[in-house]
Amino acid sequence: MNNVTIKDIARICKVGVSTVSRAINNDTGISEETRNRILETVKKYHYVPNTSARNLGAAETNTIAVLVYSVTNIFFSSMYGMFQTELEKKGYDYILHSVKDTQDIVAEGIRLVKEKRLKGIIFLGGWIDPTKMRLEDIPVPYVFCTVYQDIELPKSDSASVGIDDIEEGRRIVEYLIERGHTRIAIIGGVEGDRATGAGRLRGYREALEGAGIPVDERLIRHMKKNLEEFTAKNGYAVCKELLETGLEFTALFCVSDLTAVGAYRAIYESGRRIPDDISVVGFDGIELGDYIEPPITTMHQPRDQMVIETVRVLTGMIDGTSRAEQVVLKADLLERASTRRL
Amino acid sequence: MNNVTIKDIARICKVGVSTVSRAINNDTGISEETRNRILETVKKYHYVPNTSARNLGAAETNTIAVLVYSVTNIFFSSMYGMFQTELEKKGYDYILHSVKDTQDIVAEGIRLVKEKRLKGIIFLGGWIDPTKMRLEDIPVPYVFCTVYQDIELPKSDSASVGIDDIEEGRRIVEYLIERGHTRIAIIGGVEGDRATGAGRLRGYREALEGAGIPVDERLIRHMKKNLEEFTAKNGYAVCKELLETGLEFTALFCVSDLTAVGAYRAIYESGRRIPDDISVVGFDGIELGDYIEPPITTMHQPRDQMVIETVRVLTGMIDGTSRAEQVVLKADLLERASTRRL
Repeated sequence: MNNVTIKDIARICKVGVSTVSRAINNDTGISEETRNRILETVKKYHYVPNTSARNLGAAETNTIAVLVYSVTNIFFSSMYGMFQTELEKKGYDYILHSVKDTQDIVAEGIRLVKEKRLKGIIFLGGWIDPTKMRLEDIPVPYVFCTVYQDIELPKSDSASVGIDDIEEGRRIVEYLIERGHTRIAIIGGVEGDRATGAGRLRGYREALEGAGIPVDERLIRHMKKNLEEFTAKNGYAVCKELLETGLEFTALFCVSDLTAVGAYRAIYESGRRIPDDISVVGFDGIELGDYIEPPITTMHQPRDQMVIETVRVLTGMIDGTSRAEQVVLKADLLERASTRRL
Repeated sequence: MNNVTIKDIARICKVGVSTVSRAINNDTGISEETRNRILETVKKYHYVPNTSARNLGAAETNTIAVLVYSVTNIFFSSMYGMFQTELEKKGYDYILHSVKDTQDIVAEGIRLVKEKRLKGIIFLGGWIDPTKMRLEDIPVPYVFCTVYQDIELPKSDSASVGIDDIEEGRRIVEYLIERGHTRIAIIGGVEGDRATGAGRLRGYREALEGAGIPVDERLIRHMKKNLEEFTAKNGYAVCKELLETGLEFTALFCVSDLTAVGAYRAIYESGRRIPDDISVVGFDGIELGDYIEPPITTMHQPRDQMVIETVRVLTGMIDGTSRAEQVVLKADLLERASTRRL
């Protein structure tokens, strides 16, 4: 054990503390030579580059936890690195903790606060029921990021950052309708889902109803409960069944891009082409969507901005400089090659 | 706060403790009715279903940390959920902590042990240098899972679980050679990489040399350092450049499946077909590989077995019932539609 601080390193290297921080965090704005000199000094003096290391043994920690549903979901996992970067920039240490579908994410958060002495919580993904979950018992500031609050329930006044799933789901279906599609199928979340999948499905219904197109319930399909939700595997299984019904449709809305990857395969296996026979749209805007064949038209969620806003709101609440804000961001419709005009 | 234990729940429900555990962990082997009855009781009595909750306030915790390089890498992120399940089965609490490329993963592990009072560490991904990193200072049992130990360096006797990247890289290139390919390009890790990418590249060289095929250094390509490693975006950029050189090749080995997804796009954009003009093989065996067009021939890493073995070795070391084992697992060659015989 030693007690070398970031200030000691700065003094030894004859630079400012922020320069040392930049070297450690591999940020831009310093020369390669300075960076190397600082990192060598860090190594030589066994400096442990983290603010919370100074809290060893003390009751206080400086940790924020990200609690995530569906830890393997590619959309969420693409956010982890950026959460870490943003939290560390503000001097917080970070842990990621996954929660199962069967667990009460709020109860799990309360447990973790006590066990890990958290300063704050970011809830990522999933769905909360403010009438049943003990939000008022969470003893630290928290923000819901991309967490869906059931539209049938009284809205919680908790801090939140996300998009409007109903609105954005409606927009992408309107895009299809504007291009002449009226027979539009959807692969939504699991049956009885009340999370993001449900919001996007409601948007689908609103778009059709708004355009005076009757909703054909047979074209509304749900992901299978026995497979992981929002995966290619699930999308494949559901789309295959849909195609086997022989129901006619010219467009398909998959409520996640990864689900659409599976739907692509089912469509190809049936001998159909995209977009010639079926136009396909996704949702999320994961990087992969630009590389699959054909690249997919999708609603791109402002992922980076979501992370930045979430960290801003949460750290502001911890510092006492801001209130529990509810930030609603816009998604971008990315038009690519998987859709055509009828 | 309350002090309801798992035993109380079992007594109230008139079932065994293991049945309660199964209900909470959503395991198989109990009826839906029993599960529902138990979960209702759990809710009613506000039971906090985690062993470490009983340690509140005590110095001891029961936490194991997974420290991961490249937290957003789809291959690793697909393992998180299973690590959690396996660790919880054995009564451990779990946190996931990501480490940046610029950080010393061992130093970060040592810091976390002190701060979070860990019982053990799983290092996931990346590369270690046993001659420079202070392995002997890690105060708790640890296992390297899929961590690459530089082949040029003396082998550490730390516990490890993984595949032999050289051997498996060699096997998939031999598969191409057996099918008549001699002009085989490779997209390896970044230049100067000494981790898994380097091992697979060495396997590529060994396969060619073993078959008496001269190695054409121009066909050896490296991922770009300014893009995230092992991503579709990186594979796309590198493959596009390779195709623009006009060099002739009939097969391409991408050292990760996701990299291959990007290579697919570059190949399509150049007007070539897979496998008619270029056979492509990947590595990892991510779920997605079965859904892209065409499904990719790849080396499937025994991901689930890796998780199970890692947890087995680590918890055995914590309990004092096993030594630091070095487990080398075999990968499976999955033959799909992206390769053809010349």
